[in-house]
Amino acid sequence: MTEIPKNHPRYESLMTREQINAGVDKGMTSRQGLLAQGRGEAFDYLIGEQTIESANYAEAVAVCLLLLAENPVISVNGNAAALAPAELVTLSQLTGAKLEVNLFHRTEERIQKIIAELKENGADVVLGENAEPLLPLEHERAKVEREGIYDADVIFVPLEDGDRCQVLGDMKKLVIAVDLNPLSRTAQSAHVSIVDNLKRALPNMIDMIPEFKNMNEADLWEIVEAYDNKVVLVDAIETIKENLTAKQNEVLGIEKDDSDDGDKKERKTEQRKRGRIQRDPEIAKKVMLRGADLMME
Amino acid sequence: MTEIPKNHPRYESLMTREQINAGVDKGMTSRQGLLAQGRGEAFDYLIGEQTIESANYAEAVAVCLLLLAENPVISVNGNAAALAPAELVTLSQLTGAKLEVNLFHRTEERIQKIIAELKENGADVVLGENAEPLLPLEHERAKVEREGIYDADVIFVPLEDGDRCQVLGDMKKLVIAVDLNPLSRTAQSAHVSIVDNLKRALPNMIDMIPEFKNMNEADLWEIVEAYDNKVVLVDAIETIKENLTAKQNEVLGIEKDDSDDGDKKERKTEQRKRGRIQRDPEIAKKVMLRGADLMME
Repeated sequence: MTEIPKNHPRYESLMTREQINAGVDKGMTSRQGLLAQGRGEAFDYLIGEQTIESANYAEAVAVCLLLLAENPVISVNGNAAALAPAELVTLSQLTGAKLEVNLFHRTEERIQKIIAELKENGADVVLGENAEPLLPLEHERAKVEREGIYDADVIFVPLEDGDRCQVLGDMKKLVIAVDLNPLSRTAQSAHVSIVDNLKRALPNMIDMIPEFKNMNEADLWEIVEAYDNKVVLVDAIETIKENLTAKQNEVLGIEKDDSDDGDKKERKTEQRKRGRIQRDPEIAKKVMLRGADLMME
Repeated sequence: MTEIPKNHPRYESLMTREQINAGVDKGMTSRQGLLAQGRGEAFDYLIGEQTIESANYAEAVAVCLLLLAENPVISVNGNAAALAPAELVTLSQLTGAKLEVNLFHRTEERIQKIIAELKENGADVVLGENAEPLLPLEHERAKVEREGIYDADVIFVPLEDGDRCQVLGDMKKLVIAVDLNPLSRTAQSAHVSIVDNLKRALPNMIDMIPEFKNMNEADLWEIVEAYDNKVVLVDAIETIKENLTAKQNEVLGIEKDDSDDGDKKERKTEQRKRGRIQRDPEIAKKVMLRGADLMME
């Protein structure tokens, strides 16, 4: 591993990259996994690299669901195993959820390596070796174990693909997804979408378990039933938009203003609007000579 | 290469992944390049996977600058060589810009492979082999050729790192960056930031060259001088925000409405605001038993 000083402003993000790299070295993480990690990094950056309140809420509801489930299963892929193997095992132990390896780019070798990694991190049983093509999918993620994902009532799917997420939902399973992209098909089709970094979500969920374990089932159901995933998704998108607006203000040199002063707000919007491409007739004519369109409004 | 049907809704994006994969196979693209590609994919998705008007404008200004330059240089890394080798060579030939390979994760082997790729795509001379550590940077990107990047007045840097972009600017070189992330240090510190996919930007720029070549220098300078990079950045961010708002409306089932009807607008904003986490005192109390904070406002 490359030495990264702990005080580096992007320490967490760089450490995560190193972990994913180590996952590739170990034969667990695929190249597609690196691309997916990059996409996640971009969204994490936009969300502010922190667990936002709505994600914290979704994580609480996810814990309730895992505790309420008859046969909960945690689906593990190469990225999840590289990023948080110990936390996945702990979550499984504290909630009674089974662990099952399920890969989009499945090879028996990768399955074995991920199982070994989870066992090294304390797992007793890890499903995935004896998977059969039981899901109506045309790729390798169709392969699941009968007493695992196939029979599960609640499935926790960190870093999932959209296809399988939809299929699991169609099979009337409750799906908890961890996906930093609130716009993804996964986030849109899961029942509980945790828009958070897996490395922050899992420790947070693990912390919550003891208290929720003390609650009775009726209270846990009440929390679950009050949950509206749309609100959580819209809130995550709203957070990104707020961060983008802050950046626009920074680019334009507009100082931060927490007051709700309507007048000031209007001025800020006005300034940002001026940030839209404006028609300068003389220049526009010249650029347009070649057909490029200089202006937007 | 995996066979991807041309009518696949994400054909372009999937083809790009295949190209980057091929770049890794050829030894040109690094693992870090895959992560960077993933980040780019996320921002391309947010921008709508199209050349927005402000990017088109930045591309026009970039062409003017390359034509006006005394010693323009195109800096090439492993991702750029994998994605658009022929277009980089054509841009170089039509503008008289030199090609120089410059890598963050530099190995002589990768330098050689990228030079070979560019020559296979028609390049005559490609700099980069005889680089010396001339830039004030603590990593391998410090290594540039004296008659190349070191002496350049205008540098075109597709898919750049922020450190070097700042250093080049400090050296009073005009920097044109291609970066899908309008918030990146690269985009923020370049003189012309093209917030577009390299695979769309290069053909578009190449198309523009003949017409701009017919213009005199004074007219080209006028276009360049009227350019305000801040406007382009703010516009790109605004586009992302608009796309995010459209997605919020989709999640909430609010139909698209192009009218400027202030009343309707207000209703929409109201509905979106309701998308923020609301306090439900009973549920909140239960979730808060364990310290999680259910609500935001």
